[in-house]
Amino acid sequence: MNTDTSFQFNDLSGKTIVLTGATSGIGHAILPDFLRQGLNLILMGRNPEKLAAVVEEHSSHKEQIQTITCELSDPQSREEACGQILKSNSAIDGFISNAAIDPRREFENISTHFVRNVMATNLEPSFHITQKLMPLLKKSPAGRIILIGSVTYDLGGTYMSAYAASKGALIGLTHCLSHELYTTNITVNCLSPGAIVVEKEGHRPERDQQLIDLQSVPRRLTPKDIIGPLSLLLSEAGGGISGQVIKVEGGVFHPLASANLQKNRLETDSTNPAFKDPE
Amino acid sequence: MNTDTSFQFNDLSGKTIVLTGATSGIGHAILPDFLRQGLNLILMGRNPEKLAAVVEEHSSHKEQIQTITCELSDPQSREEACGQILKSNSAIDGFISNAAIDPRREFENISTHFVRNVMATNLEPSFHITQKLMPLLKKSPAGRIILIGSVTYDLGGTYMSAYAASKGALIGLTHCLSHELYTTNITVNCLSPGAIVVEKEGHRPERDQQLIDLQSVPRRLTPKDIIGPLSLLLSEAGGGISGQVIKVEGGVFHPLASANLQKNRLETDSTNPAFKDPE
Amino acid sequence: MNTDTSFQFNDLSGKTIVLTGATSGIGHAILPDFLRQGLNLILMGRNPEKLAAVVEEHSSHKEQIQTITCELSDPQSREEACGQILKSNSAIDGFISNAAIDPRREFENISTHFVRNVMATNLEPSFHITQKLMPLLKKSPAGRIILIGSVTYDLGGTYMSAYAASKGALIGLTHCLSHELYTTNITVNCLSPGAIVVEKEGHRPERDQQLIDLQSVPRRLTPKDIIGPLSLLLSEAGGGISGQVIKVEGGVFHPLASANLQKNRLETDSTNPAFKDPE
Amino acid sequence: MNTDTSFQFNDLSGKTIVLTGATSGIGHAILPDFLRQGLNLILMGRNPEKLAAVVEEHSSHKEQIQTITCELSDPQSREEACGQILKSNSAIDGFISNAAIDPRREFENISTHFVRNVMATNLEPSFHITQKLMPLLKKSPAGRIILIGSVTYDLGGTYMSAYAASKGALIGLTHCLSHELYTTNITVNCLSPGAIVVEKEGHRPERDQQLIDLQSVPRRLTPKDIIGPLSLLLSEAGGGISGQVIKVEGGVFHPLASANLQKNRLETDSTNPAFKDPE
Repeated sequence: MNTDTSFQFNDLSGKTIVLTGATSGIGHAILPDFLRQGLNLILMGRNPEKLAAVVEEHSSHKEQIQTITCELSDPQSREEACGQILKSNSAIDGFISNAAIDPRREFENISTHFVRNVMATNLEPSFHITQKLMPLLKKSPAGRIILIGSVTYDLGGTYMSAYAASKGALIGLTHCLSHELYTTNITVNCLSPGAIVVEKEGHRPERDQQLIDLQSVPRRLTPKDIIGPLSLLLSEAGGGISGQVIKVEGGVFHPLASANLQKNRLETDSTNPAFKDPE
Repeated sequence: MNTDTSFQFNDLSGKTIVLTGATSGIGHAILPDFLRQGLNLILMGRNPEKLAAVVEEHSSHKEQIQTITCELSDPQSREEACGQILKSNSAIDGFISNAAIDPRREFENISTHFVRNVMATNLEPSFHITQKLMPLLKKSPAGRIILIGSVTYDLGGTYMSAYAASKGALIGLTHCLSHELYTTNITVNCLSPGAIVVEKEGHRPERDQQLIDLQSVPRRLTPKDIIGPLSLLLSEAGGGISGQVIKVEGGVFHPLASANLQKNRLETDSTNPAFKDPE
Repeated sequence: MNTDTSFQFNDLSGKTIVLTGATSGIGHAILPDFLRQGLNLILMGRNPEKLAAVVEEHSSHKEQIQTITCELSDPQSREEACGQILKSNSAIDGFISNAAIDPRREFENISTHFVRNVMATNLEPSFHITQKLMPLLKKSPAGRIILIGSVTYDLGGTYMSAYAASKGALIGLTHCLSHELYTTNITVNCLSPGAIVVEKEGHRPERDQQLIDLQSVPRRLTPKDIIGPLSLLLSEAGGGISGQVIKVEGGVFHPLASANLQKNRLETDSTNPAFKDPE
Repeated sequence: MNTDTSFQFNDLSGKTIVLTGATSGIGHAILPDFLRQGLNLILMGRNPEKLAAVVEEHSSHKEQIQTITCELSDPQSREEACGQILKSNSAIDGFISNAAIDPRREFENISTHFVRNVMATNLEPSFHITQKLMPLLKKSPAGRIILIGSVTYDLGGTYMSAYAASKGALIGLTHCLSHELYTTNITVNCLSPGAIVVEKEGHRPERDQQLIDLQSVPRRLTPKDIIGPLSLLLSEAGGGISGQVIKVEGGVFHPLASANLQKNRLETDSTNPAFKDPE
């Protein structure tokens, strides 16, 4: 992945953020642009080999990356991982709670165990790690908490009940926590991506076209579309934004709104004298 | 149209509401259920013949209906029509601002004249008539202002910019006016219908199926789906609701959320051991 | 509590719904109006004595009430309670997932145990019981799932992170489940109450006035304000509404929007010739 | 105003955007940061002297600024002003529809003339100028339409009905136009500022504190808080965002959500054994 993205938030240089879910998907793809802006990254993830591979991949920025092994769905593991960060006692400037699982399951087959699993990974770290890091976030001149949501919450989605529930929970947390922190310099926001193509998905031209046909933005979104909004929210330039859900989803529109379905009405109305413009 | 709808808000009996757009569409189709609940109706519309026909159609409820001719897009005509109502000096219990035009036009062909036309019909009466009726609405123990919106505002829609803009304007008005009236017993809400089939549209089975396939409610919506929510908002039973947009749109969902598109992922995930339930 | 509420949804008579959280608060206060409309109620709650007391309280409607003891936060107990209902194999026409706990806690003191507790009571029954009842809900001509949310989700609220998260989760579930059930006659909605005064709160005139001063509706809301919207959603008259959040919160407005704060600007602007009306 | 803002969107350099409302308020205050990023600006405004003064003020960037006199509320003037831009036949990379009037008026005194005036300035240019510039926006590799909204639309506001209506209309336009342009590289968004302090307002410490006490962000917002989000939306880095409303309002929260009002409940709940954590 190239890093020639044409923006730079200078105040990010030298700042330190904690990021989960950085060994794959969007979380992985945005690393180069974080690093080139000078951010120090503390990556939390379950797999030490994958974390090491990520460091290797960005070897020219090695000194900017610290990794901490953490089973994000396990409270004890989260406690220990955060303990390592807290030992340093240095300011943390941001926490991006990004790791999530998104298993599809028919509602009729969703067990309590399944709901709890989804929440343990998708919701609990946003409470737990945020809370543990709070003393260090308060040391930052501009602490940032960014929870990664999903447009699935808004759009709904078959077989996605538990996932969408976990993302709705994050929004509730965003609203309340931003308010509760009103005497601090910390902002809390939810960045909600739409359908983002990441490498592992491979090439599925038909599916791609289907998506593109329902987006205002006439191309598949990529992690490049997330890094700018994320950087803004991390920067002091985004410091006026708190308690918000920022959707980056390419302007998904409903086919009921499409030109195709409206063409007949358009023709009828254009010849209707009641709607005529004066000469 | 039969009136066997199985509900009754008793406090509506003997109350008087003003309604625009009652000679066709939803506004016309809901009349029987208003009348059977005992509401007195003051119908404002441009065409005296059509208004007379509406009265004729509901001849068994003649004494409940008053008609006032009004070119709703014309300030002078609105002034005069409201003047007639004000003369009576009796309480008005509700105003339903329903009349609207919905001409499709490509954005590139939308003239200022066109925008103004749409606003004159779709927005101005909600300001002007509401304002003129305010002294009489304040006389009611439970005054109700209901502005009819459209899910087009939320969904967007090709060729509908001016229409959706007028509906967005109504929501802004809903928010502010509900607040400004906070010392009164008047509530202000926006009822936002989706695709409602009314008789004039005739039978288009293919289009119907297309819509139904994208709705949680597996049938075309009809004006029957609007009359209950409207009656609730008019009644004292709905008096806790103010400043809201109530959407009656059949649970429109996006095809990206459909079972079809998610089937593959469902199969993959169901065999993923990471997502397995314990035995 | 009197039951003279002046509305009646006739199709509710003889229908059967399951309700949680019916021994106190809103869930308890709405029972008389459900019963007088002829609904059969299956009340699920943890405390058999309290459930028995509820039946006693409505002894003239005894035959309409069935009670099932269930510790709602316990999967095994939910399983057993639902098993009892399933044995009958008769249609269930609705499920209202109402029970919730709302403990305040500073974010810095929220433990994973606490989050899980809140979710176990506030979220899991909406997944679990809904799912177990689904075969019976599908037997109804008009199945209804109503999840009780909270405006806290939208408004945010200090010390309420976990509660608001659980309510956001319910909205995500509402969206997805309504869509997933698109081939059925079942609607899924979230009814989101604001500050509702229930008896146990006693009299706190100062707090009452504080709330009233920030509501468009110039009185405290009571459970009476909830019963109408709930009845509509349960009835076939509300069958066009699905996937929605209906807020019953009295038109809460922000003091920044208040007349007081805008008075100065109003005076300045009223003398500004640029904003003058023509004579 | 200094321009040391610590970010830079490099792709903006050499691009050309049209901006209204640049002689005062937010529109004026953001100019330095646009200019330092290399944007060419075409400023449309009614007052040629003020426009000239703006150029003078930024004399070191003179060659980046073009001014066009235009009475924005007048269709004929808009037509002519756009005609001047069209003559060049060069790509326009963005249009920021920012000019607006915000006169307070009691609802009871709002005339149709007043509503039309507000719409003529606040809404019509967003239709008209956008449309006229469309051929040139389509020539850009990344055309951007940004309509400036207001949180007043969401929050409501006494005496602001017409203003909030105009802002709601812009959101409806945002939704529809983003969709209608789905085959182009143009995005359409609404940036919705909260209470932003600009110089002309002078010092009102008491009012400032009142606002700050109700914001998650513990300081008055300034135009600096707008320039980052605006720059992102203009840049290709924001190209995945379309059809959205981005709110920059400092995390305004409701006093009902404040720590003060929740303190009692917090204390009660913290001693409630039902909510206790296990040892």
